Amino acid sequence: MSLFLVTMTVKTTLNQDLKEEREKVPFVVEEFTNWFHGGEANVKDKRYLENLIVNNSELKLDLDMSYMSHKEKYEEAVRRATIALKLFKKLREEGFGGANFFEKILLPFSSVLKQGSPISLQFSMFIPGLMKLATPEQQAKWVPRALNLSIIGTYAQTEMGHGTFIRGLETTSTYDPETKEFIIHSPTITAYKWWPGGLGHTVNHAIVFAQLYSLGKHHGLHPFIVQLRDEETHKPREGITIGEIGNKVGFNTVNNGFLGFDKVRIPLSHMLMKNAEIRENGEFVKNQSSILNYGTMTHVRVGIVRDMASLIARAVTIAMRYSIVRRQSPIDPNQPEPKVIEHITQQMKIFPLMAKVFAVKYSADNLMRMYLKVTSEIERGDLERLPELHALSCCLKAVSSNEAVQAVETLRLACGGHGFLTSSGFHDLYTNCTAAQTYEGENTVMLLQTARYLIKVWGQALSGKKLPPTVAYLQNYKQGNDRNKWNPSINGILMALQTTTSEKVALAYKHLEARKKLYSAEEAANQTGVELLKVAELHCQSFLLQSTIEMVEKCTPKVSLQLANVLRDILELYAVDLALRFLGDLLQFNNITSNDVEHLQQRMELALKSLRNSALGIVDGFDFPDYVLSSTLGAYDGNVYERLLEAAKKSPLNHEDVNKSFHLYLKPFIKSNL
Amino acid sequence: MSLFLVTMTVKTTLNQDLKEEREKVPFVVEEFTNWFHGGEANVKDKRYLENLIVNNSELKLDLDMSYMSHKEKYEEAVRRATIALKLFKKLREEGFGGANFFEKILLPFSSVLKQGSPISLQFSMFIPGLMKLATPEQQAKWVPRALNLSIIGTYAQTEMGHGTFIRGLETTSTYDPETKEFIIHSPTITAYKWWPGGLGHTVNHAIVFAQLYSLGKHHGLHPFIVQLRDEETHKPREGITIGEIGNKVGFNTVNNGFLGFDKVRIPLSHMLMKNAEIRENGEFVKNQSSILNYGTMTHVRVGIVRDMASLIARAVTIAMRYSIVRRQSPIDPNQPEPKVIEHITQQMKIFPLMAKVFAVKYSADNLMRMYLKVTSEIERGDLERLPELHALSCCLKAVSSNEAVQAVETLRLACGGHGFLTSSGFHDLYTNCTAAQTYEGENTVMLLQTARYLIKVWGQALSGKKLPPTVAYLQNYKQGNDRNKWNPSINGILMALQTTTSEKVALAYKHLEARKKLYSAEEAANQTGVELLKVAELHCQSFLLQSTIEMVEKCTPKVSLQLANVLRDILELYAVDLALRFLGDLLQFNNITSNDVEHLQQRMELALKSLRNSALGIVDGFDFPDYVLSSTLGAYDGNVYERLLEAAKKSPLNHEDVNKSFHLYLKPFIKSNL
Repeated sequence: MSLFLVTMTVKTTLNQDLKEEREKVPFVVEEFTNWFHGGEANVKDKRYLENLIVNNSELKLDLDMSYMSHKEKYEEAVRRATIALKLFKKLREEGFGGANFFEKILLPFSSVLKQGSPISLQFSMFIPGLMKLATPEQQAKWVPRALNLSIIGTYAQTEMGHGTFIRGLETTSTYDPETKEFIIHSPTITAYKWWPGGLGHTVNHAIVFAQLYSLGKHHGLHPFIVQLRDEETHKPREGITIGEIGNKVGFNTVNNGFLGFDKVRIPLSHMLMKNAEIRENGEFVKNQSSILNYGTMTHVRVGIVRDMASLIARAVTIAMRYSIVRRQSPIDPNQPEPKVIEHITQQMKIFPLMAKVFAVKYSADNLMRMYLKVTSEIERGDLERLPELHALSCCLKAVSSNEAVQAVETLRLACGGHGFLTSSGFHDLYTNCTAAQTYEGENTVMLLQTARYLIKVWGQALSGKKLPPTVAYLQNYKQGNDRNKWNPSINGILMALQTTTSEKVALAYKHLEARKKLYSAEEAANQTGVELLKVAELHCQSFLLQSTIEMVEKCTPKVSLQLANVLRDILELYAVDLALRFLGDLLQFNNITSNDVEHLQQRMELALKSLRNSALGIVDGFDFPDYVLSSTLGAYDGNVYERLLEAAKKSPLNHEDVNKSFHLYLKPFIKSNL
Repeated sequence: MSLFLVTMTVKTTLNQDLKEEREKVPFVVEEFTNWFHGGEANVKDKRYLENLIVNNSELKLDLDMSYMSHKEKYEEAVRRATIALKLFKKLREEGFGGANFFEKILLPFSSVLKQGSPISLQFSMFIPGLMKLATPEQQAKWVPRALNLSIIGTYAQTEMGHGTFIRGLETTSTYDPETKEFIIHSPTITAYKWWPGGLGHTVNHAIVFAQLYSLGKHHGLHPFIVQLRDEETHKPREGITIGEIGNKVGFNTVNNGFLGFDKVRIPLSHMLMKNAEIRENGEFVKNQSSILNYGTMTHVRVGIVRDMASLIARAVTIAMRYSIVRRQSPIDPNQPEPKVIEHITQQMKIFPLMAKVFAVKYSADNLMRMYLKVTSEIERGDLERLPELHALSCCLKAVSSNEAVQAVETLRLACGGHGFLTSSGFHDLYTNCTAAQTYEGENTVMLLQTARYLIKVWGQALSGKKLPPTVAYLQNYKQGNDRNKWNPSINGILMALQTTTSEKVALAYKHLEARKKLYSAEEAANQTGVELLKVAELHCQSFLLQSTIEMVEKCTPKVSLQLANVLRDILELYAVDLALRFLGDLLQFNNITSNDVEHLQQRMELALKSLRNSALGIVDGFDFPDYVLSSTLGAYDGNVYERLLEAAKKSPLNHEDVNKSFHLYLKPFIKSNL
C-alpha cells in the first residue's frame, strides 16, 4: 500500500490535553484578547478581515508554496497579490478600519504570502516616497496613477556597494541643459541598485536616488522618478539592465531586484523637487531642510518593533501549544510520559519569551506616543526632543530584532526535530526577524547611533544641563565609588539597570576622552566601539522594563482582578529574567551578593510556577488564527501529528510511488557495480 | 538592453585589497596549513581530492540548485550522489587515505551536495549499524551487499511521536512461532518512523527498531532488517506506507522519510541478533550487554564537534575576506571609506569566532584521544572512565553546536544584506549547525546528562572519593566563604571558571538535596533544571579553554616563532573573550573588581589589534577551496560584486525579459482598475 492511495483529513476534534489545559486557565481569555488588541471593536474588525481572507477560495491558501521552484513561487505570489489587492480595494470602498486602515490590514494581508509580496512596496515605500519627495504638482500627476496601480513602483536607494552609508551611493544624475534632461548612469558594477522589493520583474517605475551633477557641480543625493519598463509590454526600456538578485534565506516572493543604468535620459520634471530643484538653466535651488526624515524613519521603526512583538508572539503560541500536546521523557520513571511543558527547562525556554512579547509591544506603543508628541512639537518648530526620539528608535529597532531572532530560534529548538520542518511555521518567522536585523539601518550602526547620543547627553549632564525624560536617569545617578545598594523589587531592578548603564556611559565617556588626545574623535569612537554597543543595549533594556512596569500600572485598575494578577506575574517574570540575563553587568556596579543571586533564581522558578496555568490562555488570547500561524505544530486544535502527515503528503515527491531518479541514476549505478 | 543579452565572466585577477593584506601576514601561511591539518601529507591528500572533485565536469557543481523545485533538487541530488559514489569507489580502489579514508573524504564529498546526500546514511548509519547489531553470520549475508550498494539502506529509529526518549517508541515486532516470522506493525500514527535520511524514496532496506513481543511477553527495543521496496521496480512492498516528510529549513536533498507498517511479516532471521535473539520456539535470549553503545555515541559526537569547528571556520573565512573587500562608512569623514574590517565592532564580531575554531577543534581532538584510551580500557574490561567520557561528549556536542549557530549567524550579519543571499553560502552553514543542535541527542537533554554526572561525582567528592581527571578540579576546589582571589593570567581565567563551576555544582547539589525531601529524586532534578544546564555549560567551557591552553603548550615548541606568536595571540583572545562572556558567573564567585573588568576589556582590544595582520593569513590557512565555501562573498580572489551579479544571473527568472505573470495576472488586474 503506498501513501498516495491513503486518504486522510485532519480531525476537527480538539486535542484532549489542550482541552484540559484550557479549562484550567484562571482568567477570561476574551477579556485578555480585547485588552491586548486595544478594545473589542479592534478585535471584531480583526476577525472580520481574517474570515474574509480564510474564506476566499481564490487565494488558495492551502497550496504549499515551499515545494515550488523559485520561479513558480514568484508567479504564484503575483497571482495571490492581485487577488489580495482586489480584497484590499473592496475593504477601502467599504470604509473598513477608517484612519487605521493600513495598520489593521497589515498582519492579515501579509500572512497571505509568508515570504512577502512583490507589490507591497507600492504602499509601504513608493506612494509614501512620492508624498514625501514630490512637489504638490508632481504628486497630482503621479499619486493617483500609483493609487489605482496603473503604475507600479519601488524605492531604489541601496546599491550593490552601499547600503548603510548612503552618501557613498554611486549612481549619477547629470543635468543636460541643452535637452532639459537628466542622464542617469551607473558608472561601476557596485553602482547597480540592489535589493529594492518588486524591482526584479514586477514594477514599471522607481524612485531612484542618484548623485546630482549640474553645470559641473555636485549637489549631493536626490530622488528621481524613472520609468523602467513599458507599461503595455512590460519590456525593460532602453539602457536599463534589470533583474532579480537571486535566491535568499527568505522573502523569496518579494522579487528584490537590481538595476543598472546606461546613460538613461529622463525629463527635467522627473526630479522629485520638494526638497531641492534644478531650474531649466541648470541652477540648483534648495527648498527645505530634510530634518523631517528623522521623524519618518522613527515611524518605520515603530512598525518594525511592533512586528517583532507579533513575530515572537506567534512563535510562543506554536511552541506553547506543541509543548502541551507533545509528551516526552518521563520525569518519574513509574509514570507515563508527561507533557513536555512539565519540564522546567521547557518552561524556562518559553515563558520568559511570552513575557517579552508584552515588553516589546508596549515599548513600541510608548515610542509611538513619543513620536506623535515630538512630531506635533516639530510642527510648532520645536526640534528639541528629536535626537532623543531618534536615539530611542534606533536602539529599540536593534534590540527588538536581535531578541526576536533569539526568541524564534529558542522556540523552534524547543519543538525538537519537528521545528526544523517548514510546516512548523518557524522558518518564515525566523526570516522575518533576521531580515529586520539588517534592513532600515543595520543593527550595529543603529546601536552606535544611540550610544553617540548617550555620550553627548552625558557630556551635557556633566556641564549641568537638564536632560530629556528618557535619559533623565543619567542625571539622577550619583557618581562616586559607593556601590549601589541592591533592592530586589522590580523598581529596584530597574534602578540597578539604570545605575549600570550610567556607570558604563561614564566609563565609555572617560575612555573616549582619553583616546581623543591620541586620535581623531572618529577614530577614538571607533576604538571605543565595543563599550558603546553595550551602553546602547543597556539603555534600551531599561526602557523595555520601564515600559512594562508602566503597562501594568496603567492597566491593572481597568481589568478584572484575575487578569491583573496574570499581568503582574508577567512583569515579575520579565524583570527577574532580565536581571539574570544581565547579571554580569549588574554585578559590576551593584552590591549584589551570591545570596541575592540565589534569591533571584528562586523568584524565577516561582514566576514560572505562577504562570503555569495561565500560559495557554495567554497565547490563545493573542488570538492568531490558524492561517496566520500556518503551523502544523501550533494550530488551535492541537492535532499535531495528523497535520504533520497531511503536510508531508503535499510534497510532489509523495505523489508517485517511484521517482524517476531511481530508473535514471540509481538502478544503472547499482547494476554497474555488480 | 536587457540582462540576458549581457555576458560577463568573473575576473580572475585578485582583488587589490586582499592582495595587499596578504602581503602583510607575519607568518608563512603554508606552515600554518600543514600544522592545522596534521601534516603535509594530509594537506596533499586533501588538495588531490578537492581537485579531483572540482575538475569532474559530470558533477556540474556550477548548477545552482537553490532555484529548483523541491522535487528537482532531490532528483539532482540522486544524480550527483551516484557520480560521487563512482569517484568514491575509484579512490578506494586506489588505496587513497588508508585507514583514514572516511575521515579524509568527508568534507570534500559532503560539499558536493550542500543540503546533504540521500545515500550518505548507507555509510554513516546503515553499514555501521549492521556491523554493530548483526551476528557474524548475518554480517556475512548483508554487509557485502550493502558495500557494493546492491542494497541501499537507512537506520529507522526515531518516530513521529518519539525522538530523544527511545524507550517510548511504539512500533511493534511480534514473533509468530507458527510461521517463524515477526509481524512489524505501527499501532498509531505517532508510531510512524519519521526522519531517517534516504527513507523517503531512495533506500530499499532499513534497520528498524521495534518493541519486541514474543509468547505474550515484552522484551524491549530491538533491531530488525526490513526490505521496504522491491529491488527491481523500487515499488513499496505490501503493507509499507512510505514517503518523505516534506520541506525543511535545510537538508532538503537528504530525502528524510516516514514509514508505517501494516502488519508486515519478515522472517525470523531478519532480527539483528548480536545483542539478543529469539529462538524458533519464541524463547528470548540476551547475548551481551550494550554498554559499548556509549562508546559509539561518543565517536559520533566527536565527529559532530569537529564538524562544528569546520563550519565556524568556513563562516569566518567568508566574513573575513568580505570585510577586507567591502568598504563602508568613513571613520574619518575626510578619508575614503575604509575596509569594514577597520571598524573595531567588526573585528569584535569576527576575531573571537576565529579563535573559537581552534578551541572547538582541539577539544574534539582531546575528546577523540580520550575515546581511544577509554575504548581500549573497556576492551580490557575496565569501564571506570566511561561515564566521564560520556558526560564530556554530551556537553561538548551541545555547547559546540549551540555556539556554532551563534557564530554563523553573527558572521552572516557581519556581511550585511548580502549575507542574506543564498549565494553568500551562510544559509547552508547555518542549517548544518542548527540541525546538530537537535540530532544525535537534543542539546538540553545532552546538557542535563552532563549535569547529572557532575552532581554524582560531587557527591562522591563529598564522601572523599578521588575523581577522574576531567572533573578533578571539583575536588581541588576549597569550600567555604572565601572568595577566590582573581588572577588575570590565562591559567587564572581557567581557575576562575573552574571555581565558578564548582560553586555552582555545590549549590545545585544543595538545592537538589533539599528538594528530594519534598519530591521524588526525578521531580527534584526537574525543578533544578535551570541550574543544572548552567553547570554543564560551565564545565564544558572550562574544558574548551583547557584544551586550547594545551594546544598552544604542545605546539609552540614545534612551530616557527612567528606562528607560535600567532597561536599565543589566539589563546589570549579566546580566554579574555570567554571571561567577558561569562562575567556574570565569574563575578558571583571570584573577587573581580570593576578595575579588573576594565583591564579585561583593554586586553580584549589589544588582542584584536595584535591579530589584525594575521587574521587573513589564518583564514587563508584553513585552506578551504572555493567550491567548499561556495560563497560569492568569500572566494579566494575577492571578486565579490562580479560574483554576486553572476549568481543572480543564474536565476531562471532572469532568463526572460518579461515573466508570464505580468500578462496572466498583473496586466488584467491593472486594466480592471482603470
